[in-house]
Amino acid sequence: MKGPVLYLVPSPLGDTRPSGVLPSAHIEMVRTLQYFVVEELRTARRYLSALGMDVRLLEFGVLNEHTSPGELNDLLEPLRNGHSMGLLSEAGLPAVADPGAALVALAHRGGFGVVPLTGPSSLMMALMASGLNGQKFAFQGYLPVKPGLRDKKIRALEKLSAQEQQTQIFIETPYRNESLFRALLACCSASSRLTVAINLTMPDAFICTRTVEEWKGREPDFSIVYRKKPCVFLLLA
Amino acid sequence: MKGPVLYLVPSPLGDTRPSGVLPSAHIEMVRTLQYFVVEELRTARRYLSALGMDVRLLEFGVLNEHTSPGELNDLLEPLRNGHSMGLLSEAGLPAVADPGAALVALAHRGGFGVVPLTGPSSLMMALMASGLNGQKFAFQGYLPVKPGLRDKKIRALEKLSAQEQQTQIFIETPYRNESLFRALLACCSASSRLTVAINLTMPDAFICTRTVEEWKGREPDFSIVYRKKPCVFLLLA
Repeated sequence: MKGPVLYLVPSPLGDTRPSGVLPSAHIEMVRTLQYFVVEELRTARRYLSALGMDVRLLEFGVLNEHTSPGELNDLLEPLRNGHSMGLLSEAGLPAVADPGAALVALAHRGGFGVVPLTGPSSLMMALMASGLNGQKFAFQGYLPVKPGLRDKKIRALEKLSAQEQQTQIFIETPYRNESLFRALLACCSASSRLTVAINLTMPDAFICTRTVEEWKGREPDFSIVYRKKPCVFLLLA
Repeated sequence: MKGPVLYLVPSPLGDTRPSGVLPSAHIEMVRTLQYFVVEELRTARRYLSALGMDVRLLEFGVLNEHTSPGELNDLLEPLRNGHSMGLLSEAGLPAVADPGAALVALAHRGGFGVVPLTGPSSLMMALMASGLNGQKFAFQGYLPVKPGLRDKKIRALEKLSAQEQQTQIFIETPYRNESLFRALLACCSASSRLTVAINLTMPDAFICTRTVEEWKGREPDFSIVYRKKPCVFLLLA
């Protein structure tokens, strides 16, 4: 590819060994970069250091939910000066379920090349391992926090899933995983299939698909074993 | 993880160098397996051979759209005999946009562990690189072939996308990419954003996001340069 490029660099989910995160050719590619836009400096430095880079020689910009449009524009300055750069999210794929998409959109508008690298996606790993419909699915992000609205949304997603045979994928802030799980059991039909995928890529990863009926009395231990662990929920009615 | 496990092994999209497909720790893991369920024997043998395996020592089962439920059950025989095994699709992630999900569901019902490995997903790479909404998206699979139904579906997806701010992702059989692209330009609003991601992971990969208006007169060359190349389409109204 001619000209400077914005590389989209996946980050570890749980397993932080580089040999478990990126294909080796992609590690070599990332090592050639000097400029990075990251969500959190500390995590990014630790990761790039684990990839064998001297982080003192790197230049970082920070992109998170507080970044203004003006700051966003400045973050692409290295590309305008002819330098390729890397975009990293906090975990998994940049620009999926994080604020990175706005930077990618700006790179397209500037006519720069955008190259996605291969790495772990908790959403896709959970979907692959669910056994639910992988030919039609939707990622819904976070459900509403207030119980009334949340339960209404759960019922709407279950109905949509039944109508379209579309697997519904959603996530929750880890400390609310247990209450979301209980709400799913309370709101969904006995025969709906529910997958819980916790702490993917780690030795204690838990991935299980059961009907709502089968889950009752066999709930994952969210209060001790999987306390505050990242979890992906998938539902197919 | 105790007991035999069904590993979900990603395959190359276009770039077939193992160093560009799987993290090295995952390559090591795959090399320990003797049993595989694959979509197409020839491609699978070539890929596993490139991973450094002696394919004459491996045992294969075939899973495709013609596999009956009885045959599906037989494919898990190695797990029942205590052997871990690998599931491969033709390209990308197994059990996403292919018939593998039924085998994964059966493994869950049998109480076996299911472990997804990291690798390339054309859908996620296209989404990351699109700059469209990665916090809410849906994969719709293939659109209808008949022009009337197809155009109706395109309009319905554009409407849904506008209502939900949900990125719509879909694919087409490569020789119909051009006619789908033309239909998208004809059916969608001038301001809707359309991403075309062709031949991902290859040196000639093309990823571009423009409004429908901006695409007019600047169509990708589907008839020569990108003739019969795999393409992912993304739409956000």
